[in-house]
Amino acid sequence: MPETETLAVVRLKPGQEDRLRAGHLWLFSNEVARVEGAAPPGCLAKVATAGGESLGLGFYHPHSLIALRMLAPGVEPVDAAFFRRRLEAALAYRTRVCPGETSYRLCFGESDALPGLVVDRYEDVLVLQVYSAGMELRLPAIGEALEALLSPRGIFLKNDHRLRQLEGLPGECRLLSGSVPERVQISEGGLRFWASVGAGQKTGHYFDQRENRAYLRPFFPGRTVLDLFCYTGAFAVNAAKFGAKAVLGIDSSAAAVALARENAALNGAGAAAEFDEADAEAVLASFAEGRQPFRPDMILLDPPSFVPSKKHLPKALRAYAKLNAAALKALPPGGLLATSTCSHHVGREDFVGMLRCAQAKARKPARLLALRGQACDHPILLAMPETEYLHFALLEVV
Amino acid sequence: MPETETLAVVRLKPGQEDRLRAGHLWLFSNEVARVEGAAPPGCLAKVATAGGESLGLGFYHPHSLIALRMLAPGVEPVDAAFFRRRLEAALAYRTRVCPGETSYRLCFGESDALPGLVVDRYEDVLVLQVYSAGMELRLPAIGEALEALLSPRGIFLKNDHRLRQLEGLPGECRLLSGSVPERVQISEGGLRFWASVGAGQKTGHYFDQRENRAYLRPFFPGRTVLDLFCYTGAFAVNAAKFGAKAVLGIDSSAAAVALARENAALNGAGAAAEFDEADAEAVLASFAEGRQPFRPDMILLDPPSFVPSKKHLPKALRAYAKLNAAALKALPPGGLLATSTCSHHVGREDFVGMLRCAQAKARKPARLLALRGQACDHPILLAMPETEYLHFALLEVV
Repeated sequence: MPETETLAVVRLKPGQEDRLRAGHLWLFSNEVARVEGAAPPGCLAKVATAGGESLGLGFYHPHSLIALRMLAPGVEPVDAAFFRRRLEAALAYRTRVCPGETSYRLCFGESDALPGLVVDRYEDVLVLQVYSAGMELRLPAIGEALEALLSPRGIFLKNDHRLRQLEGLPGECRLLSGSVPERVQISEGGLRFWASVGAGQKTGHYFDQRENRAYLRPFFPGRTVLDLFCYTGAFAVNAAKFGAKAVLGIDSSAAAVALARENAALNGAGAAAEFDEADAEAVLASFAEGRQPFRPDMILLDPPSFVPSKKHLPKALRAYAKLNAAALKALPPGGLLATSTCSHHVGREDFVGMLRCAQAKARKPARLLALRGQACDHPILLAMPETEYLHFALLEVV
Repeated sequence: MPETETLAVVRLKPGQEDRLRAGHLWLFSNEVARVEGAAPPGCLAKVATAGGESLGLGFYHPHSLIALRMLAPGVEPVDAAFFRRRLEAALAYRTRVCPGETSYRLCFGESDALPGLVVDRYEDVLVLQVYSAGMELRLPAIGEALEALLSPRGIFLKNDHRLRQLEGLPGECRLLSGSVPERVQISEGGLRFWASVGAGQKTGHYFDQRENRAYLRPFFPGRTVLDLFCYTGAFAVNAAKFGAKAVLGIDSSAAAVALARENAALNGAGAAAEFDEADAEAVLASFAEGRQPFRPDMILLDPPSFVPSKKHLPKALRAYAKLNAAALKALPPGGLLATSTCSHHVGREDFVGMLRCAQAKARKPARLLALRGQACDHPILLAMPETEYLHFALLEVV
């Protein structure tokens, strides 16, 4: 008997269907009136309004704040064929919007109608992150669909994110199928980068900044570039390859700095780009104190998220403003600051407002040349602001 | 005696200096405590805090809501040499950020530290728009500076904007110097366009969408493109030249449609792009009624501003949402909508929220592939949200 015939029914409280009808995919626990039938974590369930109208099918979780994640407007089997159709559509989309690329985010969860499933493609290796119990239970079918679609060398589960706890899922990194090397050489915009994807590795590659790296290329010629939070050097190598006079990358992780050096060498930019293991704020402080021999006229600032939860937002915005003000202070007139935030708690206007504060604080009037976001392989589902998290600005000191 | 020695002093009310200190250039009439000395419309004046600290120099207007527009943090002569330095910096900036272009907005008022002065460069012809009495009074010095800098064939004053009334300035279009042909052939991104710049002409060229036109080029191949509000065809010609299968441009102005046809022919795209004089909403309605033979899978929507003033915003947002919903309804799955607003009353989040409503209204879940703004030659002064007005989104129907 197909799974869909015996499904539980999640019935909404009156008037709670508007957000779902507008295209949002989450139903919160306080919007559920009752659940009819057995509904263990991650089970498939039918969704119905208080009036009994069917809204479709989703993954239910009795203990999660996100009680239900919508999968389909009708009722259909959620099997390997289902996942193959959805992943085929996700692949076709990347083929359209990332022409020439062979490494990218292949599936971005809700934005690809696969709530809680993230798939990164590192050439012939796939790395999965699973955030919902419903997806976790269906990993065999997902693996089967991915095998059929891409015949990868290996599929690796990188399931160490703390968000998994919200669905009662354990933290674990393991092979799902095939074999996965410790690191993979990927291509991005005609350059090559090592990305560590295997067990115990902390460094991958941030595909979400791909388009912003490409966007900056015309701005690099002749610049002296300081790349703070340089990670494995993807921005810095672009700067060195596209005309920067000198590049200094700074990261607090020794592993990241080591890989950044390798990435520079891999692209024949070993002489043009230097990397140091250091604290970004300490480096900026050294400018203020006049004891910094490196004199950048372009600073790249892509810090990690300072916002573990919504309640930390005001404090985080002050910290971002302080960091950006210090960077602006270190720049001469005409200097460029390419700066980002990567927390979905930071809205677009929060970001611009924070930058406005930073330039006021630094007494460095600045122009906003561009405000951009995450690359196309991380599409934003318009109905779900939660799918947007990366903001990027290019500022010029007047 | 230099003009700066006999200046009036505009004294602020206590605590009103914060916005100016943060880099904003406007002082509003209700923030002024008193004016010491003779201060006719457009005069230069010194600005001082309630405590007597000097904040610099600006243009004062006794009857304008914007009582003062900051010019400089110190006191200096505002003569042809002053304007030449500022315009030189403006030109150097365009040379940096618009490589290869010879037509662009050369000066964007406040963002170029020349409040109330807009200069568009159409190859060797300059078109000025003046929005402040201070600039109007100094047109001879501005003309002298532009002559020295660029030796233009002619400088034309296009001063018919209703905003001039706020500073008591008459509406007039006239030659400032040299000679200006009725229309100029300009270059943009390797294509050629006719722009009408002379007296009595209503069509120019919107430089502010230059980068968005270039951004769309990779999305055109194979598409059937409907360009609503096509104006003189700049988007449509790009579509036809960069791989669109068919292009239909619609505008309600016969003059715009005629010029669009000429622009298509000028670029050898006369066969690939057709243009009709029609009402955009009527065309969209014809889709809903199933009587439209043209079946687009990409729609370009760049309507004029629907927001004459802030109080019209809610109504305008509903009108924009209706228009965008109609466009989304006309698109198949995978269809693209490139849509804009060009009123500074519409904030970035208003725009995204309006699009969210439109996709809900149309029952067409959509992805936001990119959110962009005005081109780099219209830089946003971070401290002045008033300098931002253009929003552009690329949506894909899921």
